[in-house]
Amino acid sequence: MPPPSGTTAHPPAEVLISEVGPRDGLQSVKTTMPTADKCTWLDALVAAGLREIEVASFVPAKRLPQMADAAHVVRHARRHPGLTVVALVPNLRGAQDALRAGAHKLTLPVSASAAHALANTRKTPAGMVEEVRAIARLRDELSPGTRLEVGISTAFGCSLQGPVPPDDVIRLAAECIAAGADESGLSDTVGYAHPAQVRSLFRRLRAEIGEHAGAAHMHNTRGLGLANCFAAWDAGVRTFDASLGGLGGCPHAPGASGNVVTEDLVFMFQAMGIRTGIHLEKLFAARQALAAGLPGEPLYGMTPQAGLPKGFGQRP
Amino acid sequence: MPPPSGTTAHPPAEVLISEVGPRDGLQSVKTTMPTADKCTWLDALVAAGLREIEVASFVPAKRLPQMADAAHVVRHARRHPGLTVVALVPNLRGAQDALRAGAHKLTLPVSASAAHALANTRKTPAGMVEEVRAIARLRDELSPGTRLEVGISTAFGCSLQGPVPPDDVIRLAAECIAAGADESGLSDTVGYAHPAQVRSLFRRLRAEIGEHAGAAHMHNTRGLGLANCFAAWDAGVRTFDASLGGLGGCPHAPGASGNVVTEDLVFMFQAMGIRTGIHLEKLFAARQALAAGLPGEPLYGMTPQAGLPKGFGQRP
Repeated sequence: MPPPSGTTAHPPAEVLISEVGPRDGLQSVKTTMPTADKCTWLDALVAAGLREIEVASFVPAKRLPQMADAAHVVRHARRHPGLTVVALVPNLRGAQDALRAGAHKLTLPVSASAAHALANTRKTPAGMVEEVRAIARLRDELSPGTRLEVGISTAFGCSLQGPVPPDDVIRLAAECIAAGADESGLSDTVGYAHPAQVRSLFRRLRAEIGEHAGAAHMHNTRGLGLANCFAAWDAGVRTFDASLGGLGGCPHAPGASGNVVTEDLVFMFQAMGIRTGIHLEKLFAARQALAAGLPGEPLYGMTPQAGLPKGFGQRP
Repeated sequence: MPPPSGTTAHPPAEVLISEVGPRDGLQSVKTTMPTADKCTWLDALVAAGLREIEVASFVPAKRLPQMADAAHVVRHARRHPGLTVVALVPNLRGAQDALRAGAHKLTLPVSASAAHALANTRKTPAGMVEEVRAIARLRDELSPGTRLEVGISTAFGCSLQGPVPPDDVIRLAAECIAAGADESGLSDTVGYAHPAQVRSLFRRLRAEIGEHAGAAHMHNTRGLGLANCFAAWDAGVRTFDASLGGLGGCPHAPGASGNVVTEDLVFMFQAMGIRTGIHLEKLFAARQALAAGLPGEPLYGMTPQAGLPKGFGQRP
């Protein structure tokens, strides 16, 4: 098949799609998905070609009963060879539990907005940098091979604070790397980002911390999710968070909802001739496993409904 | 107010948003909106700051009863000073009627896919170029001040033919200008376009026909509408078609649906510090006029639901 129009015949570029639905999605809905259904859904995601999945959040079960089975889910996910099993940890205590359960990668949200940081973690941004340092030390001790990722939340604005100065974001991202994190990504927690801002801020991030610059975690709150992902791609980002069916959002940011839909994001990259390793029809099939575990929950995504273009084929 | 982050302090850039809902939207739904409701809706769009509106299609009433009042609607729209009143014309006969009614601008779809051209107009692409020539001649005779725009449909692919060679698209756009059209734009009729392709094809178009390069008419069929508009902006496009509430699509292309939502597109540009002349809250209010004239019809758009970001303000 000839390369799709608009691309060249060079070896195709690649992106890593990091599926966050089983954590970000499931902790945002009121219903608790039964553990067996979570595992079936994870298996379907792996069968579609996902290579990195954020499978759980290590938070107290009384605060988030949806995540009470986090250790079990991590152990199940670890059975899939080649899969990077990511766990969200809000603090040192969660990191301990996640390391014990065997997560390959920890991800820690660190908010650039003091108001959001306090609401979400009861710490200031500077306090969270100290938490990163403590977690990195623990990781070095218990499991040196485990990666530590920081996601700078409200990097593009905050529904509590309003605008967030880019200097604050870049400085915080660099401080987290200095404190021992392997990568700092940027999150549009409340869906305020626009493409010019995304391109500009990720370029600054890469100029500041180089290969430690991490994933783009965009929301589709105001419909700009894919435009922002394209802008991030343009700025050199190669890892993108997304959620099957667009499940999830941020429970501590009023009015925020809607992760970028994995299905549409994968379609966009594959259409551009960029490899994702994901089989789109199998990805669409994974929606059934999600729906079975969360009956009645609305699922988003336009490509599954419209189908693939004539002559598109599969280009995992 | 300081310029939004990600932009510079230069004088702000501008775009023209061309609202196509009253034509493209209304001819795609089964219900016929009463003439009085159309006029109320148009008035609300103008009150929100829209400066160009495609108000009707001049086609035989037995084929599209939704457009039987086209001449009346054009005359009503002409009462708004400063508004460019656009009418779609499928052929010379339609152009005669639209010129008589007093449209300021005619827009003619010319498909780059022979299969789509035949299904939509019963002519080949070459036959449509002859139609452009005849319409331009008639325009010069009857109303030399009226602009003639061509929209190259299926410019990014066709659900009947599959891929459409970029060379065909660019050649056809140039032939239409040579035949007397003032501008040739590119339409993603069936929602196959991806951002890399959009940027590449609009750059080629501008290299070929310079300032005769016209609007980007993108669809949101697979969720990429705004990403494609951002890519077109990047390639120098400054006129964008969109539809309030995302109403409309293409009735002759199976599986196609979903225009770019005006509300989300305007939000994207304003967030980037690009002037649209449109007042977003008044634009949201215009949805009520649309809904009143088409009870029960689903309306899309995420920004009206999420609301504007904290501290966003109005930046028409």
